[in-house]
Amino acid sequence: MTSEPAQMPVRLGVVGLGRGFMLMIPTFTADPRVKLVAAAAPRAESRAAFEAEFGGRTYDDIVPLCADPEVEAVYIATPHQMHADHVCTALAAGKHVLVDKPIAISMADADRMVAAAEASSKHLIVGPSHSFDPPVEAAARLIESGEVGSLRMIQAFNYTDFLYRPRRPEELRTEEGGGILFSQAIHQIDVVRRLAGGLATRVTAMTGAWDPARPTEGAFSALIAFANGSFASLTYSGYAHFDSDVWMDNVGELGQRKDPAAYGKARRALQGLDAEAEAALKQTRTYGSGAGLIEAENNEHFGPVIALCDRADLRLTPAGLDVFGDIERRFVEVPFGPAPRGPVIDALVGAVREDRAPAQTGAWGRASLEICHAILESAASGQPVDLQRQCGIT
Amino acid sequence: MTSEPAQMPVRLGVVGLGRGFMLMIPTFTADPRVKLVAAAAPRAESRAAFEAEFGGRTYDDIVPLCADPEVEAVYIATPHQMHADHVCTALAAGKHVLVDKPIAISMADADRMVAAAEASSKHLIVGPSHSFDPPVEAAARLIESGEVGSLRMIQAFNYTDFLYRPRRPEELRTEEGGGILFSQAIHQIDVVRRLAGGLATRVTAMTGAWDPARPTEGAFSALIAFANGSFASLTYSGYAHFDSDVWMDNVGELGQRKDPAAYGKARRALQGLDAEAEAALKQTRTYGSGAGLIEAENNEHFGPVIALCDRADLRLTPAGLDVFGDIERRFVEVPFGPAPRGPVIDALVGAVREDRAPAQTGAWGRASLEICHAILESAASGQPVDLQRQCGIT
Ligand SMILES: NC(=O)c1ccc[n+]([C@@H]2O[C@H](COP(=O)([O-])OP(=O)(O)OC[C@H]3O[C@@H](n4cnc5c(N)ncnc54)[C@H](O)[C@@H]3O)[C@@H](O)[C@H]2O)c1
Ligand SMILES: NC(=O)c1ccc[n+]([C@@H]2O[C@H](COP(=O)([O-])OP(=O)(O)OC[C@H]3O[C@@H](n4cnc5c(N)ncnc54)[C@H](O)[C@@H]3O)[C@@H](O)[C@H]2O)c1
Repeated sequence: MTSEPAQMPVRLGVVGLGRGFMLMIPTFTADPRVKLVAAAAPRAESRAAFEAEFGGRTYDDIVPLCADPEVEAVYIATPHQMHADHVCTALAAGKHVLVDKPIAISMADADRMVAAAEASSKHLIVGPSHSFDPPVEAAARLIESGEVGSLRMIQAFNYTDFLYRPRRPEELRTEEGGGILFSQAIHQIDVVRRLAGGLATRVTAMTGAWDPARPTEGAFSALIAFANGSFASLTYSGYAHFDSDVWMDNVGELGQRKDPAAYGKARRALQGLDAEAEAALKQTRTYGSGAGLIEAENNEHFGPVIALCDRADLRLTPAGLDVFGDIERRFVEVPFGPAPRGPVIDALVGAVREDRAPAQTGAWGRASLEICHAILESAASGQPVDLQRQCGIT
Repeated sequence: MTSEPAQMPVRLGVVGLGRGFMLMIPTFTADPRVKLVAAAAPRAESRAAFEAEFGGRTYDDIVPLCADPEVEAVYIATPHQMHADHVCTALAAGKHVLVDKPIAISMADADRMVAAAEASSKHLIVGPSHSFDPPVEAAARLIESGEVGSLRMIQAFNYTDFLYRPRRPEELRTEEGGGILFSQAIHQIDVVRRLAGGLATRVTAMTGAWDPARPTEGAFSALIAFANGSFASLTYSGYAHFDSDVWMDNVGELGQRKDPAAYGKARRALQGLDAEAEAALKQTRTYGSGAGLIEAENNEHFGPVIALCDRADLRLTPAGLDVFGDIERRFVEVPFGPAPRGPVIDALVGAVREDRAPAQTGAWGRASLEICHAILESAASGQPVDLQRQCGIT
């Protein structure tokens, strides 16, 4: 599939130099298996910063970036609603694609992307997502090994300040992919599917959109049944009150140490801002605006997760797996580093250099997206929703 | 309704001197508002111990106890399946009744009990149950005050060793009231209903009975919708692996300090025992067998509970309420003592001396029982179950 020697770094072009890209910088710079060679972005300041920092070529549009023969693979980190067009453009140009979660907003877009990937000879990977987190992977492998018996039940929950981080206006409109479902629940769904083998069958859920000033979903609870007979209970709130990171060793989602004294920070920062001022505040956190990088010291996580198996409960922590066996409890350390999100690069390199698909393919990402829609649909109807587009671990 | 002066202690007869009664001893002995004057129990050793400790009269059957004119109220702490007959006997004899949870196993029995209470001029109270816990009561009052806005979502979960505590054989048979639903979920349902105002409308749930050696439900997850628009997510496991008391300040359900070094104790104690030996082991933990009392130093609890309201999340702890407001976090202390379960005595005294019904009436207990059955039914059918017999706070 490729003529590059296996040890050559994957030459990556980035589309979208915003917050999502910022969060990947420590990963890209720490990993010699990948090289940033080009970027496409509408803002001149971010293009200039990219050229200065990485020495790559920049473009103001995805089309010329995809025509750049040096680019082997493209990382799409544009807003959700652009993912479908951008992914199809890159695939059509013969590039492998890593697209940030969620794969898309609508199922129709996701279908189009999966079909485009299948029609091409290239790989489509959906990530980063917290299903790549090393403790999640370690738990999935322990379950798959059979050592702790069958997986039976998963509980995953997360209480964050997501809804009160500065937003673009469309990020607060559900029909445009706003709210916690497409940006946050998708992680939790990915994690739970990774542990349960991927094939969900039915979803029942309730959601809440309780702040009239930010009228999109801010919380939900869902029950998910899986084809292997296990089930999962998911709960999420982005309303910036309780913070469940106190139960994750005070380590934040991105592996950073958290300061409990900073309580109320997210809501305070938004006080008195209108939508325009808020979007401008978001801009100050993107690439090329002088914002600092997150300093991770631990594995990333997406809130407490407990996987109940016949012979042990596994509690995922940023440091590894707390394994509560029948008679004894032990801790399986899962080392961090050198940078976060190494497994995303593993997936990219495996795909580009060895033609090996990770779990998180386009079809996988579509299956997680289907559950976001099922949650909305079940909450609206009060009825369970049967799933049609699930995808197992391949 | 009564001619006793308000300050006279309520003269209580106890039926069933087992584990449930043991757990109430510290409450009864610490509270001058109640006096144990009689007991009915089949075991001579427990009757002798009762006479020696409390100086009351004892009987080998409930009927003569109920004929004892000194007895004003009866506390029924016999196995679930006997509650209905025992409650109806006591009511028919003109006694007020406190019956331990669950009110009964079948809805038909619960109906019979509620009807008997209505036909009498006496009160039927279902308790103790963790809905009486002072932090639960404090949270319910804070919600009712409107100070933190509307209640929107509750999450309650608990991971215990319940299924591996020594059992009578019927406690491991669902149709006879065994398993975690009738003995444990009932607490969680009571707590959540107390916070949400009581009127649940619909339940969707999944359950697990995963240990072939103890083939009754050991775990479940449920989503419950309430008439006020709020919803709750409940998860419980009694499989003696992860212990969620680590997230409750290492305080156990009964307010006792827990020793994390005792990991695996419950399962170890059962190793190699057959059903008979196990029932005998349970006997050693009942009244009159020399077993010690639990030493509570904190309020009781039933696992982590988070109540999301518009302007704050309330996290219940054994010490009180952690109130996560918009900008500030504060702690509302809820003092413990002098003994656990004082609010159960408040309810009893209020009913007997002031003709005041608590929230936890027979109709209340029946409503919680209805949800246990709805959980089983939904798990079997895969469909939501609409509730018909709910009861609000009066
Ligand atoms: N996995 C994670 O942890 C994580 C975290 C944050 C964001 N994300 C994802 O990244 C994506 C972007 O979100 P964000 O928060 O970074 O938003 P953002 O607004 O900060 O960044 C989007 C960037 O895309 C650029 N852009 C817009 N149109 C473009 C175009 N036609 N061509 C090239 N660039 C264009 C914008 O200028 C902006 O810099 C979303 O899909 C989001 O889900 C993922
Ligand atoms: N609220 C709580 O924290 C709590 C805790 C434990 C038990 N309980 C409740 O207490 C009840 C009893 O459970 P347990 O664990 O104590 O069981 P147990 O077996 O320890 O006690 C039951 C007792 O009832 C006695 N008994 C049997 N038939 C009798 C009869 N006809 N007349 C009088 N006594 C009779 C038995 O001898 C035994 O001592 C159950 O409904 C249970 O749910 C509640």
